[in-house]
Amino acid sequence: MTAHNFQLVLDDINDAIRPLLGKEGQVASYIPALARVPAQQFGIALRTRDGQEAASGDAAVPFSIQSMSKVFTLTLAMKHLGEHLWERIGREPSGNPFNSLVQLEQERGKPRNPFINAGAIAVADRLVTQGNAKADILALVSSLCGEAVQIDAEVAQSEADTGFRNAALANFMKSFASLDNDVATVLDVYFAQCSIRMNCEQVARAAAYLCRDGRHPRTNAPVVSERLTRRINSLMLTCGTYDAAGEFAFRIGLPCKSGVGGGIVAVVPDQLTLCVWSPALDATGNSLLGMKALEMFAGQTGMSVF
Amino acid sequence: MTAHNFQLVLDDINDAIRPLLGKEGQVASYIPALARVPAQQFGIALRTRDGQEAASGDAAVPFSIQSMSKVFTLTLAMKHLGEHLWERIGREPSGNPFNSLVQLEQERGKPRNPFINAGAIAVADRLVTQGNAKADILALVSSLCGEAVQIDAEVAQSEADTGFRNAALANFMKSFASLDNDVATVLDVYFAQCSIRMNCEQVARAAAYLCRDGRHPRTNAPVVSERLTRRINSLMLTCGTYDAAGEFAFRIGLPCKSGVGGGIVAVVPDQLTLCVWSPALDATGNSLLGMKALEMFAGQTGMSVF
Amino acid sequence: MTAHNFQLVLDDINDAIRPLLGKEGQVASYIPALARVPAQQFGIALRTRDGQEAASGDAAVPFSIQSMSKVFTLTLAMKHLGEHLWERIGREPSGNPFNSLVQLEQERGKPRNPFINAGAIAVADRLVTQGNAKADILALVSSLCGEAVQIDAEVAQSEADTGFRNAALANFMKSFASLDNDVATVLDVYFAQCSIRMNCEQVARAAAYLCRDGRHPRTNAPVVSERLTRRINSLMLTCGTYDAAGEFAFRIGLPCKSGVGGGIVAVVPDQLTLCVWSPALDATGNSLLGMKALEMFAGQTGMSVF
Amino acid sequence: MTAHNFQLVLDDINDAIRPLLGKEGQVASYIPALARVPAQQFGIALRTRDGQEAASGDAAVPFSIQSMSKVFTLTLAMKHLGEHLWERIGREPSGNPFNSLVQLEQERGKPRNPFINAGAIAVADRLVTQGNAKADILALVSSLCGEAVQIDAEVAQSEADTGFRNAALANFMKSFASLDNDVATVLDVYFAQCSIRMNCEQVARAAAYLCRDGRHPRTNAPVVSERLTRRINSLMLTCGTYDAAGEFAFRIGLPCKSGVGGGIVAVVPDQLTLCVWSPALDATGNSLLGMKALEMFAGQTGMSVF
Repeated sequence: MTAHNFQLVLDDINDAIRPLLGKEGQVASYIPALARVPAQQFGIALRTRDGQEAASGDAAVPFSIQSMSKVFTLTLAMKHLGEHLWERIGREPSGNPFNSLVQLEQERGKPRNPFINAGAIAVADRLVTQGNAKADILALVSSLCGEAVQIDAEVAQSEADTGFRNAALANFMKSFASLDNDVATVLDVYFAQCSIRMNCEQVARAAAYLCRDGRHPRTNAPVVSERLTRRINSLMLTCGTYDAAGEFAFRIGLPCKSGVGGGIVAVVPDQLTLCVWSPALDATGNSLLGMKALEMFAGQTGMSVF
Repeated sequence: MTAHNFQLVLDDINDAIRPLLGKEGQVASYIPALARVPAQQFGIALRTRDGQEAASGDAAVPFSIQSMSKVFTLTLAMKHLGEHLWERIGREPSGNPFNSLVQLEQERGKPRNPFINAGAIAVADRLVTQGNAKADILALVSSLCGEAVQIDAEVAQSEADTGFRNAALANFMKSFASLDNDVATVLDVYFAQCSIRMNCEQVARAAAYLCRDGRHPRTNAPVVSERLTRRINSLMLTCGTYDAAGEFAFRIGLPCKSGVGGGIVAVVPDQLTLCVWSPALDATGNSLLGMKALEMFAGQTGMSVF
Repeated sequence: MTAHNFQLVLDDINDAIRPLLGKEGQVASYIPALARVPAQQFGIALRTRDGQEAASGDAAVPFSIQSMSKVFTLTLAMKHLGEHLWERIGREPSGNPFNSLVQLEQERGKPRNPFINAGAIAVADRLVTQGNAKADILALVSSLCGEAVQIDAEVAQSEADTGFRNAALANFMKSFASLDNDVATVLDVYFAQCSIRMNCEQVARAAAYLCRDGRHPRTNAPVVSERLTRRINSLMLTCGTYDAAGEFAFRIGLPCKSGVGGGIVAVVPDQLTLCVWSPALDATGNSLLGMKALEMFAGQTGMSVF
Repeated sequence: MTAHNFQLVLDDINDAIRPLLGKEGQVASYIPALARVPAQQFGIALRTRDGQEAASGDAAVPFSIQSMSKVFTLTLAMKHLGEHLWERIGREPSGNPFNSLVQLEQERGKPRNPFINAGAIAVADRLVTQGNAKADILALVSSLCGEAVQIDAEVAQSEADTGFRNAALANFMKSFASLDNDVATVLDVYFAQCSIRMNCEQVARAAAYLCRDGRHPRTNAPVVSERLTRRINSLMLTCGTYDAAGEFAFRIGLPCKSGVGGGIVAVVPDQLTLCVWSPALDATGNSLLGMKALEMFAGQTGMSVF
């Protein structure tokens, strides 16, 4: 399929989705800066392995990437630590809400996987140990998408002011000695990474290494090895969408990572990366129309890993 | 890769695995007929989309397929019921052992997915409602592999004599009205399906429709639709290997379904199906060397959905 | 306080409770024979340590004693087994609904205490091992209240027909080898004991040994030792009223055991035993007005262990 | 029994316990100041309703009262708030370790009772809202025992430095809006109350209102009402000893509250209060020999609420 064709596919999807905007789902409301984002927006963008791009709808409107940032921090941590990363973080789907403490207690402070909040906080802890975590994350993401990305300071402050559940998770892991660094420092990084603002075009580009054997979309230098790239994709498929990973695999069939800002990044291994965004969420915390758009994309293109 | 090459790959894997036989893992011991299976066996067989076959090691030795049967019963139930199947069975990974009651209580008698024991018992219940469940299962599997397969009566009896956990699961679902039929009838089917004996070659052939758009490996008639086929593959990847689905996706990257008899069936979508068997299990109930063999296969052929 | 005074107290309570009948709560509806019991009934009866009796309201109307029977089976089992009983049954409050499987899984098939369903089924199993369980239970209760008590066959049959949750509990314990006897035999005893019919006067008399150092209310022979009697009282206080034991201790302050038939038996150690009955239950499965009546009794007489 | 007799009883118990010191159990080791307390110590003291006192062993050696402080903070909070206290705190035994997060998640941030850590933190929060929490607690306890008691600053600092589990509990409740005040302020009070140092004689005296209808042991003024006093006793019996409340009720039969410093305070309603102390703990976190001493006391005096 050519880039031209992809443009038609994305426009078709945009046309089909727009009449549905604002009908169902709820915008994340736990912090004011997210709650006031208008629900009636939808964007979609893709970038093929060889660099062709297509976009439709509100693909240039920036939004809070939230948990989508976990893909980039995991990438950094895997690059630094390789298999040692798994000493204190698991790789199994959780079968529980993304911010649950139950499983963390059963498994004595070892998070089930790097994409639930506890796991991402543990990843942030490793990045703090490893270097200048916040700067390293911003540098990686900016380099990948070819533009300086920013942390939304208001969102980061709101996350910190209301992030008691995340503070509970971090303190709980600390009580099991699962964090190296102090809780406040680690949470500061975690809240910052969640508050990065990007648009669909930027995300599709930044994730491109996931469909190109780990190679940087612009420089072609390895971001991570091919083997680790496939492993990140597998984690996205089994654990990337909270407690709806089975549903995503079943209906969409692609590795995805979602965020409560309404974005979802998807990978067609060896072929392309894709980002959709629409702020209203379903009960599992995933973008309702973003998910529908991905299902249409998989249906129309026949692209599925299964 | 040609069939000839596949033969070399399987022989290589067999050569690498045999020295490891009997060193690690435990043969399932909960029933005598399984406990007395010698641990020092290993077989591997594959069948490509277009019908070429290769096999190595103990690929012709029959074994108890156990939970691998859940793929065939799910196929039958999806064929009959389509999306209605999901009214009383979920599609999410469980994050708990395969025979856990905890999650079943939290979700008020609705099993998380069709591959945990509770889910497979619920699928068996639907097959009882739908027809002559035991005969229907044997007819499907026999037709698929082109030879009459049998239920091992001794194993079935032992399963019934010791299957208190499964009886607990079935009664528990019945208490939530999640089963149509009486508990004894449903368990009889479930214990029978688990007691089917097949060898690696037969399993690789019987599963072949999963890599050929749902088409029967011998008649080419649709067993299930292409769409449902891809959905079965997605369920295998996210839920097919007990509480090690993340580990399988990470290390092997293929849809798999394992059984405590030591077998694992794997699918390379659109390309081939593969069955490995070695009786000694790891702590998650999956064949330890079977899993290692699949990892070698994925590594050597580069075949992975990611 | 004299018996005459007690009569006044019970009449006062009856007068206060009757206007409230039928206003709140729900009669147990899981079996028809319980569901059709008219809600607008209330009875209360007591028997002092030295044998004076008082009763008011529907104290002579028989009802299904249900879980109140667990006091008598526990007494029999403690008498036979002494401290050995605790090898497979715990003594701690459960913090979970009376028929929960979760805790039973966490504690590997060992029920938390003899008053949750799993624990009472385990007690019934010991009585089967020990003798002729059903006959032994009826003989004890009949002897204690001085009249032949009967099992309601219709209720027992309904319990068996719908008791899937109890069958799940029994099979689950059997899977952990926590039951000696086969599941069907044990459940038959359990369903029979729950189906005994008695009235308030009979229950107050039958429980009398609990306020008289374990001595039989009519023969004065020891039913169990004084020490075991005090231990039964302690178990009633901490575990006797499902997940409302704290609430009972707080508001009433007496050892109590309730049943879903609407009865509650209470002990004032060294002084008297008391039975109240009113069929409508609160959300915890305890008689709503029975509990209120006990609270009034404790308030008016100042009788509380605290 | 006269005071003289009580002295004999306590001396007997002391004689029986001393040879057992240092043989079993483990001193709490989570903070250095507790870990270095020599295990081979045992004290016991009591005070009757009318003010007679007896003591034996190391009854004058001060120790860290830890969770025993929860009785005094609960008393203060009940006095201020009456039944309103129960709006955000339950009254049921927990069936889980004292610092578990699981139940807190299931019950959406409402602690099961005021004696598990989460509940005591919630009580501390109410005291912060109500006044000058730390000063109020010290004033109450000092007044009750007739001597100024102190917070051990080293212990309080250690609690703060290592109290990640408590910080997790507090943040978790804050995420459910179950705390009024900020987490740091509330934890500061909680860590301070746990760090109060007292000896057995002081504790027996300070708790005396619990056996005298809520009246102050020295001034006779009401500390709390008689009704609330009985309710505090009931909470101690059902919830006062972590996950061993059933065991305490069964073996000792008295309302008790223990602390990981090795102290246990017990109440014989209307008769006396008692404090035992020995630093080595059993697996449930209760003083192993303290519990044994209380069992001997109940056995020798026949004092039991059952």
